[in-house]
Amino acid sequence: MRVIRDGRVSTRPDQLAIEEPLEIRLFAAGRRHTVAITMRTPGADFELAVGFLFSEGIVGSRDDVRRLTYCTDRDVDADQRYNIVNVDLAGAAAPDLRSLERHFFTNSACGVCGKATMDALEVRSAPLSGGPEVPVDVLYGLPERLRARQGLFDATGGLHAAGLFTAGGEVLAVREDVGRHNALDKLIGWAVLQGRLPLSNEVLVVSGRSSYEILQKAITAGVCVVCGISAPSSLAVDLAERFGVTLVGFLRDRRCNVYAHAGRILAGEPAVNPPI
Amino acid sequence: MRVIRDGRVSTRPDQLAIEEPLEIRLFAAGRRHTVAITMRTPGADFELAVGFLFSEGIVGSRDDVRRLTYCTDRDVDADQRYNIVNVDLAGAAAPDLRSLERHFFTNSACGVCGKATMDALEVRSAPLSGGPEVPVDVLYGLPERLRARQGLFDATGGLHAAGLFTAGGEVLAVREDVGRHNALDKLIGWAVLQGRLPLSNEVLVVSGRSSYEILQKAITAGVCVVCGISAPSSLAVDLAERFGVTLVGFLRDRRCNVYAHAGRILAGEPAVNPPI
Repeated sequence: MRVIRDGRVSTRPDQLAIEEPLEIRLFAAGRRHTVAITMRTPGADFELAVGFLFSEGIVGSRDDVRRLTYCTDRDVDADQRYNIVNVDLAGAAAPDLRSLERHFFTNSACGVCGKATMDALEVRSAPLSGGPEVPVDVLYGLPERLRARQGLFDATGGLHAAGLFTAGGEVLAVREDVGRHNALDKLIGWAVLQGRLPLSNEVLVVSGRSSYEILQKAITAGVCVVCGISAPSSLAVDLAERFGVTLVGFLRDRRCNVYAHAGRILAGEPAVNPPI
Repeated sequence: MRVIRDGRVSTRPDQLAIEEPLEIRLFAAGRRHTVAITMRTPGADFELAVGFLFSEGIVGSRDDVRRLTYCTDRDVDADQRYNIVNVDLAGAAAPDLRSLERHFFTNSACGVCGKATMDALEVRSAPLSGGPEVPVDVLYGLPERLRARQGLFDATGGLHAAGLFTAGGEVLAVREDVGRHNALDKLIGWAVLQGRLPLSNEVLVVSGRSSYEILQKAITAGVCVVCGISAPSSLAVDLAERFGVTLVGFLRDRRCNVYAHAGRILAGEPAVNPPI
């Protein structure tokens, strides 16, 4: 790698975030299905597969998973086998893969809109209630704790992270990936395999923006408090409002914005003289 | 929206990056196909549809597109029609949608790996040669010029951008979206509809990281110089090396890293005493 700083050239070895494809193969009812190929950072691949399948509604708990292995096919090159995860489902029934297909292709006559998308989610997930109360000073400390656990980010500057914390700010798990969604899938997959779901009392922190898809995954896992270091999208806020999620954005430098269900964040008094 | 700054609470109106689904419908050889539903920021929807179809190899030039319209189906609610773009293809033949399907589902016996993924791209795109020579001082100025054209980002802090510049640093077009890939698809769609492809002499700047998919889209459009404000992934660097693309990363604060084909960047002398 060539570094050009203020016009002066030097060289330095690359330190790159690894991106490799992962194929998720499902074995169920005697048949094999490839359900996804995703570009991911190797590591926590079993968690990624389980988290992805959980978010898609194909796996409901760890009891639905009989076995997780890397590919062992002899006709696949040895170094490629680690890019394929086999998920052996426990049930005798064939999984319903229609929701997965609907993701990518649809032939419905009706159009798509934010409302229709939310209606579809409502079929699977009820609005969340309860959940933790989090002092805002605890929130302020979470980005630094997330960052402290991001070993790969420090080296490469190129990875997203998702972290799960207690309401007191204790870190439970952090997962990294080149993709924001993959980082969250790995984290949720970890929780599924640990038998920790629903994550009703935990606080989720994502390193980037909170999009529709981040909220969708969080809601499915029962997370009541979602914090992003950066901005949320309009549809993320709509989802948070509708599903009872406390949505925090721009969590940095001892400040944050709360976009929905602010009651779970314990702050001091309202500012009498708000800063200009 | 509630703002909690240093524990003090105030309220402020939301300014959010809009995220809404877009369905891309293809009309070809008398049949209708829904080829994608993507979450996007409304605006430049026709360009997004064309850029997406170009990246997927379904549209090769503007001559392949007979007509672009929003949905006019009476059985679709009026406010949803703007979330559906109809692309009427010019040719009489049915398009080959297999590549699109391969994206999401595959039943091939062989595994997936970075090399296989690159091999597949090579079928469509030859390695790039020629291209512009860009003085590094011009490069240093591009992020600011990109940002100056990001009207929505300033308001919301939540949008990605892709910009196309001349080798002299003149801005040709900038497109924004909640999704990095969509921003680039919009930009490439603009270029397709303007009849500007291949973009052999232009410089592409993307606001975020350079992933495999960003490089893939750039190579298909013939872009020889790709710059990211943030880090590239390992597979992006591999692709750049193999396809003759100059790949620049961490372009900020009068510095950049060049990961591949550095010859197109005109810098001063090597640093005799490199800064520590």
